[in-house]
Amino acid sequence: MLRCILLKNRFVFNKILDDLYLIRQIDLDTKYFESIWEIPEGVVYNSYVLNTSNGSIVFDTVKKNYCSEYIEFLDKNINLKNVKYIVSHHGEPDHSGCVKELSDETNAVVIGHPILGRELSSFYNLTRFKPVNDGESLKIGEYTLVFHYLPWLHWPETIVSHIVEKNVLLTCDIFGSYGVYFNEIYFDELSVEKQREYLIRARKYFANIIGYYREWVLKNIEKTSSIGLKPEIALPAHGLAYRGDSIDLIKEYYLKWSRGEVIDKKIVIVYTSMYRFVEETVNDLASILGENGFKPIVFGFNDTYRSSISDIIGELIDCETIVLATSSYDSSVFPIAKLVAELIVKKIPRNKNIVVLGAYGWGYRVSRELSDIFVKNGFNVKTFDYQAGQHKSIIREIFDKITGSS
Amino acid sequence: MLRCILLKNRFVFNKILDDLYLIRQIDLDTKYFESIWEIPEGVVYNSYVLNTSNGSIVFDTVKKNYCSEYIEFLDKNINLKNVKYIVSHHGEPDHSGCVKELSDETNAVVIGHPILGRELSSFYNLTRFKPVNDGESLKIGEYTLVFHYLPWLHWPETIVSHIVEKNVLLTCDIFGSYGVYFNEIYFDELSVEKQREYLIRARKYFANIIGYYREWVLKNIEKTSSIGLKPEIALPAHGLAYRGDSIDLIKEYYLKWSRGEVIDKKIVIVYTSMYRFVEETVNDLASILGENGFKPIVFGFNDTYRSSISDIIGELIDCETIVLATSSYDSSVFPIAKLVAELIVKKIPRNKNIVVLGAYGWGYRVSRELSDIFVKNGFNVKTFDYQAGQHKSIIREIFDKITGSS
Repeated sequence: MLRCILLKNRFVFNKILDDLYLIRQIDLDTKYFESIWEIPEGVVYNSYVLNTSNGSIVFDTVKKNYCSEYIEFLDKNINLKNVKYIVSHHGEPDHSGCVKELSDETNAVVIGHPILGRELSSFYNLTRFKPVNDGESLKIGEYTLVFHYLPWLHWPETIVSHIVEKNVLLTCDIFGSYGVYFNEIYFDELSVEKQREYLIRARKYFANIIGYYREWVLKNIEKTSSIGLKPEIALPAHGLAYRGDSIDLIKEYYLKWSRGEVIDKKIVIVYTSMYRFVEETVNDLASILGENGFKPIVFGFNDTYRSSISDIIGELIDCETIVLATSSYDSSVFPIAKLVAELIVKKIPRNKNIVVLGAYGWGYRVSRELSDIFVKNGFNVKTFDYQAGQHKSIIREIFDKITGSS
Repeated sequence: MLRCILLKNRFVFNKILDDLYLIRQIDLDTKYFESIWEIPEGVVYNSYVLNTSNGSIVFDTVKKNYCSEYIEFLDKNINLKNVKYIVSHHGEPDHSGCVKELSDETNAVVIGHPILGRELSSFYNLTRFKPVNDGESLKIGEYTLVFHYLPWLHWPETIVSHIVEKNVLLTCDIFGSYGVYFNEIYFDELSVEKQREYLIRARKYFANIIGYYREWVLKNIEKTSSIGLKPEIALPAHGLAYRGDSIDLIKEYYLKWSRGEVIDKKIVIVYTSMYRFVEETVNDLASILGENGFKPIVFGFNDTYRSSISDIIGELIDCETIVLATSSYDSSVFPIAKLVAELIVKKIPRNKNIVVLGAYGWGYRVSRELSDIFVKNGFNVKTFDYQAGQHKSIIREIFDKITGSS
């Protein structure tokens, strides 16, 4: 039922400040963000409009599936003829998807990083493009825009736009989150409980999308400090906006997540189980860990169920210890366990303990092959192999291995 | 509705010949066979019983989730007190799942390869075990059983049982298939159309489960010839039974699939597409290939849809050329494309052409990293990189690459 209602309300229009407006495209159709991350909570693409006495500027557009609806909706809410510029903060098609159509419709020039120009030309044959330099400003009517390069968050051409007179920063994917909200524009409008849920979604988004570029988060936060950027409002291209203290809050989380700061005693166990032997081990292990004051969170893949990989990667980012428990398969690692291991290597900071538990049936010891993936990427790894069905006699040994006693 | 009916009929009892019976466990609950292969068509576990004047023998059991129902069902159809032996052809728990319970219930001794003894001891703490040697026979009542080792199909301890007086061979996973059938026992009872469908399911099963062990298929078929095994009936542990000519037919297919014999002009394209650029390429490519007499089959992964990996691997086994088209991701291969590549390396014979198409946005050339996976495993690989959005200008070049003109 909700989806039916949403089909009529795929776009939402809100005022942020005088002259500054938000257009949200509600997306509950995408099952796999970036074609890999499961997002049952949906996602929103935020496009912004600044009206000036000398024309309007649109900041980012929406996903390319819905361009005609987007432009039709824009047309109802702003004067399309007035659009002079489209700022495209980066080229990923969930935001750049309609710049070509909008530029064709309005004759507006697209502004962005020089690399973006090449992308838009390749993706959409767009030629109406004006590159900007790092720190370059654009005066339009009563407003000044300054563009800052914050590269590799998460594409190389990422820029942010500072509307100087309003001290508003448009941040593109930075500070973005999954999830769909109708009644709130700002994070601080959520209840305390909803804020907690939102931060879990923001962490998941961070880990999935920004995780691989975490070193660049640190560099770029340093850069924004050094150039004295202290916006009163931060407007990301997904999820809710931030103002006042909540900007510092999300920035603090970005620092923690990038550094891999851990929540005390938080252990995430991910397992694959062909015939429930590994699952039994993991269940017993989680019990013992819980009884001893640890906080285990368990994700699994078996013959009837698959955990969400996007949730797994989200939870891993602030745990102390990762346990990856798996069986062998065709004299090698179980394929899904390898996929998870490789995503961990990409997305998760190295300062975590990893314990690999390998269960075998007729011989092959799987832990070494899996742990090699981690070791060569700088993780601290312990391994433990055991014969399937025999975990009860050694569960204490496994516990000691995980908790550092051995 | 079908599922509701099935819940009451989870087990089916059939007579094969005088004294020889089949118990089928219908499984429409398992979504991922071996916790990886999607099987919407379901699967059946076949257990067989031979009644002799000196007691009964049960050959294989069913998946461990349903032991009490299985034993209850057996009890209704045979005299449980008469069961003297349980032959367990290999240790994988979809067949060995209830040997412990059945052995405890009946005091029957479990017979199998020596390696199986260690597995059953580890998995289920089973000790009532009698190992048999390759070629060893067991006389029981009026029947003679001969056990043959056919190792690595697909576990090392695989044996088959020959009931000499009936010239019936019980083959465990060999000649198995996915799919659930109620009205037929034998493959040759299917209509021509249903036989065609069944062979696609059997090929999928073969590729998924036996694919990695295809060299052992060739060795073991040679072995069965050299020892003069020519059964009149072959009874696998999944799917339908074979008799007469259809035994030769399925054996021929096993030889073809193991050798990687190709269907002329069959091309399978597998793609991952983050924002539909690769998808557009693949659609245009499939059109051109079709227009030129090739038979392209397309599988894809995008933001709303994931093809079935089990179907992909099934289709690949007899194609001439595999095209893997993908985008780059975090300066590397898109993770699902890598998973598919690694499954191809495991399951598919090397005598196929592989063409890797890599689409990039801002720079990273993905084809090399993917093709390396294939090259180091002995495949013949061609690569082609192009900037996303630019395929129309080069689609002919891609066509030539695939069809061998360049």
